[in-house]
Amino acid sequence: MKSPIRVGILGLGRIGKMHTRNLLTMKEFEVVCGADPFLTPETERELLELGVPQCTKDPADIFDDPSIDAVVICSVTETHSDFIIRATKAGKDIFCEKPIDHDVGRIVDALRAVQQAGVILQVGFMHRFDRHHGALQKKIADGTIGDVEVLKITSRDPAPPSMEYIRTSGGIYVDFMIHDFDMARFLTGSEVAEVFATGTSVCDPEIAQNGDVGSGHAVLRFENGAIGILETSRRSSFGHDQRIEALGSKGCVMDDNEYENNVRFFTHDGYHGAKVPYHFPERYKEAYFVELRDFAQAVNQRTAPPVTGFDGLQAVLIAEAAARSAKSGRLEPVERMEI
Amino acid sequence: MKSPIRVGILGLGRIGKMHTRNLLTMKEFEVVCGADPFLTPETERELLELGVPQCTKDPADIFDDPSIDAVVICSVTETHSDFIIRATKAGKDIFCEKPIDHDVGRIVDALRAVQQAGVILQVGFMHRFDRHHGALQKKIADGTIGDVEVLKITSRDPAPPSMEYIRTSGGIYVDFMIHDFDMARFLTGSEVAEVFATGTSVCDPEIAQNGDVGSGHAVLRFENGAIGILETSRRSSFGHDQRIEALGSKGCVMDDNEYENNVRFFTHDGYHGAKVPYHFPERYKEAYFVELRDFAQAVNQRTAPPVTGFDGLQAVLIAEAAARSAKSGRLEPVERMEI
Amino acid sequence: MKSPIRVGILGLGRIGKMHTRNLLTMKEFEVVCGADPFLTPETERELLELGVPQCTKDPADIFDDPSIDAVVICSVTETHSDFIIRATKAGKDIFCEKPIDHDVGRIVDALRAVQQAGVILQVGFMHRFDRHHGALQKKIADGTIGDVEVLKITSRDPAPPSMEYIRTSGGIYVDFMIHDFDMARFLTGSEVAEVFATGTSVCDPEIAQNGDVGSGHAVLRFENGAIGILETSRRSSFGHDQRIEALGSKGCVMDDNEYENNVRFFTHDGYHGAKVPYHFPERYKEAYFVELRDFAQAVNQRTAPPVTGFDGLQAVLIAEAAARSAKSGRLEPVERMEI
Amino acid sequence: MKSPIRVGILGLGRIGKMHTRNLLTMKEFEVVCGADPFLTPETERELLELGVPQCTKDPADIFDDPSIDAVVICSVTETHSDFIIRATKAGKDIFCEKPIDHDVGRIVDALRAVQQAGVILQVGFMHRFDRHHGALQKKIADGTIGDVEVLKITSRDPAPPSMEYIRTSGGIYVDFMIHDFDMARFLTGSEVAEVFATGTSVCDPEIAQNGDVGSGHAVLRFENGAIGILETSRRSSFGHDQRIEALGSKGCVMDDNEYENNVRFFTHDGYHGAKVPYHFPERYKEAYFVELRDFAQAVNQRTAPPVTGFDGLQAVLIAEAAARSAKSGRLEPVERMEI
Repeated sequence: MKSPIRVGILGLGRIGKMHTRNLLTMKEFEVVCGADPFLTPETERELLELGVPQCTKDPADIFDDPSIDAVVICSVTETHSDFIIRATKAGKDIFCEKPIDHDVGRIVDALRAVQQAGVILQVGFMHRFDRHHGALQKKIADGTIGDVEVLKITSRDPAPPSMEYIRTSGGIYVDFMIHDFDMARFLTGSEVAEVFATGTSVCDPEIAQNGDVGSGHAVLRFENGAIGILETSRRSSFGHDQRIEALGSKGCVMDDNEYENNVRFFTHDGYHGAKVPYHFPERYKEAYFVELRDFAQAVNQRTAPPVTGFDGLQAVLIAEAAARSAKSGRLEPVERMEI
Repeated sequence: MKSPIRVGILGLGRIGKMHTRNLLTMKEFEVVCGADPFLTPETERELLELGVPQCTKDPADIFDDPSIDAVVICSVTETHSDFIIRATKAGKDIFCEKPIDHDVGRIVDALRAVQQAGVILQVGFMHRFDRHHGALQKKIADGTIGDVEVLKITSRDPAPPSMEYIRTSGGIYVDFMIHDFDMARFLTGSEVAEVFATGTSVCDPEIAQNGDVGSGHAVLRFENGAIGILETSRRSSFGHDQRIEALGSKGCVMDDNEYENNVRFFTHDGYHGAKVPYHFPERYKEAYFVELRDFAQAVNQRTAPPVTGFDGLQAVLIAEAAARSAKSGRLEPVERMEI
Repeated sequence: MKSPIRVGILGLGRIGKMHTRNLLTMKEFEVVCGADPFLTPETERELLELGVPQCTKDPADIFDDPSIDAVVICSVTETHSDFIIRATKAGKDIFCEKPIDHDVGRIVDALRAVQQAGVILQVGFMHRFDRHHGALQKKIADGTIGDVEVLKITSRDPAPPSMEYIRTSGGIYVDFMIHDFDMARFLTGSEVAEVFATGTSVCDPEIAQNGDVGSGHAVLRFENGAIGILETSRRSSFGHDQRIEALGSKGCVMDDNEYENNVRFFTHDGYHGAKVPYHFPERYKEAYFVELRDFAQAVNQRTAPPVTGFDGLQAVLIAEAAARSAKSGRLEPVERMEI
Repeated sequence: MKSPIRVGILGLGRIGKMHTRNLLTMKEFEVVCGADPFLTPETERELLELGVPQCTKDPADIFDDPSIDAVVICSVTETHSDFIIRATKAGKDIFCEKPIDHDVGRIVDALRAVQQAGVILQVGFMHRFDRHHGALQKKIADGTIGDVEVLKITSRDPAPPSMEYIRTSGGIYVDFMIHDFDMARFLTGSEVAEVFATGTSVCDPEIAQNGDVGSGHAVLRFENGAIGILETSRRSSFGHDQRIEALGSKGCVMDDNEYENNVRFFTHDGYHGAKVPYHFPERYKEAYFVELRDFAQAVNQRTAPPVTGFDGLQAVLIAEAAARSAKSGRLEPVERMEI
């Protein structure tokens, strides 16, 4: 077996800690160092106890350590492009959380640096690695449903994040629906030509006061003629609602949510079943492992990762077109960019 | 189209009225007369309003009317055999509610009379005509599941009948489980060789005080080597629970209950679905029509009915063996009788 | 009981015959006459055999017959407004198939005539009377799901109609999605303010050659702030796909399709379940009865029918806005009209 | 945190390796040594690679090592009692695979030794730790379904084991149904008073030639009046079928199988869904972890384990009564034994 990939983790917030915990249990990786400019003594102690040998406030400690093979970027979005470029200069492979950046120009610069350095860059669209979505994707990819005509994605969070998060998120299209834009491309195998988007904050008026919408809806026109219909909400009181449906020429494939168990209780007023997972850490728990396992494989075998920088760029371009459409009230073309 | 079959109805209790209402809407039949020795003015008025032209307290008014083609026997069980014999003497075809009789000797006499007279006799095992059970039966009959190895039937009523009914019912095996004994033969296409049965009245101790059990359970050994497992209860608080499952060499087929609708409501504590039908009149509503339609076809075409007198006899013989087993605590052979 | 409502049927095509068959079995109605300018001897014989006492080529035979209480309009859409007006002049109550008309001006004229004459007009949106959709509607109406935030309707036919039908249908929005526009208003209890619509004919390019699209998709913005997302297709190879979902502040309610039975077969490659109903006559079989029963009640009690002319007008206004949007590529306001 | 429990593994066959792999990933345990008299160089190498520091052919190397806190007994059934007694002498806690022994006398000796030594003994009934069965158990334990009246367990393997295994298994009742006998006690909270059992080998006649049956069926009469109905088979072509149902006075609770995913594909001949897990290692994968985690907790806190030696004894006593019943054809009492 290959020796483990030595990784440094950039950003030790919620998502950074989650990836760290996963990396620590995977034999494919060795966690060398975690960096976060806002590192607190509490976080440092917590990570040490988990088994992270070293924590630092200075990312340079990671970039400058020649023993580190790869970085996992979990810091705030504004820092991603810069960290990617610094990683390419240090010759390190990169796993980067979504979105790559809110600014398309910076994304392009980062991707070009990746290309020139020949390092691996994988973007953290973990929805692709869910076993339900994956089984659905196989039914499309192997031709079972024929040509895809309509793709529908439902994606709802149980409760809105903090208003502080909302204010700096970049908006629902690039922060939240970006997963769905990526899945739309992944599942249809086609690029998106045009987008209509609209939103509302009926689920939480405070979101509107903070300049965003709580529910985002998009109609996509794919280059291959298919239609995508995406519906998302920041507030679905019954849990993390994640369902996909594809209508094809030969039939229709749907996945249902997961349930905590398969027990049903029947009584005089009907039957009662289990909850769906509360939020993405529960629903995509396994997927977060699988994406890292596949990243390890790409790194070890020097092959294209399952989610590329190009994928990361396209999702942002669709999100930008969606944001424009939500303002203009009309179908907007998705910008075409090569890198 | 053939002219309608002119029928007389014997017994105008709950089940007699139900069949009457169905017969009145079917173009295959013309209801001529209803007879019940306990006919009340209220019932008579009710039936006249429904469209029954004549009611009587004397069954002879039906047997002696040469314009009547067929009788539908819905009277108390003790009268069935006698009515069957009187119908054969009058040359009338017969639809008879289950069970044919509690006494095997009288059943045999009645079936011999039917044979000699060459009239049609169909027994009212309406479970066979349910669309779910019927679809399951097709999967068995067409070989989809291979050889049947285990057949399981769940059959539960929402609430016990009156204790007066319990006292004269003949016991759970012949009154209630007889449907399941018939389905077991129908679905496996094999006769039952041996039965083990046991029961309990934990669901309603008053039933025990009236000499019966509230829940009956039976293990059948079929002549072809398959096993049957039947579970019934007089009290299932969530409705009329009717499910069948067959394990075969190539797979397993199951039917679920019906539900009042297919709506599910998802909330923070899980999901909630609709009720199952409350009792047999709701669940087997359509089946009650289908059995009569098939009876009409047998009468018109002079072909064997879908449920014969032999079927009616076998179900009683299994019920008798079950009742013996429940007393002896051991596997009991099912008596073999020819007619 | 009231004496039956004496009805004349205008239009004896597929839908006219279906309503006729239903009316003939309902004790609330007495079918007096059927009229169709293209009446063939075959259709006449067929209807006579079913029990329609008289057929004619001249609708005047119905309008001029003072013994006829009500008309059921099943003729081609262009004739609806005229027939409604003629019925009002004859003082007859009216059940009219959808859409009332393709021309809003003519609809308004017809509705005003109805108002002035004080007759009952019910429009044939039978989706409202489906037991699944109805149970879902109750969950909304009784507050179970809280305020509706998103309403989603999936409505797909198994196969496109003839191209001749397509050419004269008025287009997918007014011919097909009109049911969904009506359901959207019915379920949310709110009017639609704006519509975005788009379509494609990837499911059947011949439809495009005939000036229409095979799949229509619409995003509705309701006056109360909710969002509607409608997705339809003329071709869904697995049957008549009819599902509705409403996300509310307290939870989410969904209905699934019906299935021909509840049997599942489990084998080494997974499980297999039953078909959904092939098309609307199978799925909405019961609903077609219920709408007529409710029409009878409105007629007998002189109360507002469950689907009014105003409802019929609104659905057309939304359809018109959708058709405009499909051309303009932008959100279009729905015209507000009073009658 | 406590320092890990140092364990030795007795028996390195299929189940021994599985537990070893699990123990190696659990921070609660440190695997010190594995022992198997039939240890091959291949197995030794395999275990070393997994991370087991030492392997031996001599169990004494484990019993005599004072640094070892606990043993995990995965050897052939005949050795269990002896190993338990040796472990008690060495003062080691014990996790023992099911069944404790085929001989009740030896079980009693072993359990007395455990009592006297004051060590922890947990028996490996992993079905109790499945999340579906566990959720069902909670519905019973918290009174949701009221008093349990009927408990039904379906337990089927995908394919029979080797005939060599069959010959030495002790028979289907003690080898296979013992899980279900344990679950019956666990779920009802009541002891079993009487058993009727029967079996057949219609699923695989070769099993009969080797002195066993391929399908075992049992009816249990619990001391509290409830009835248990167990149905098992060595061959269920669609996978590891594991379902439980309990009918109580207030309703009915059922668990369904797991499925590999929640995707359904709808086409013209119905819908198709995913497979169930192939066999117990897949279905009870998580449960095997949970039972060890709970064992660690009992060891660390010196509390009663979730499955005691008494539980292990009762299951064997029921199995013995079942085996007697299968021969006698009658209800057999379950022996009462105290330890």
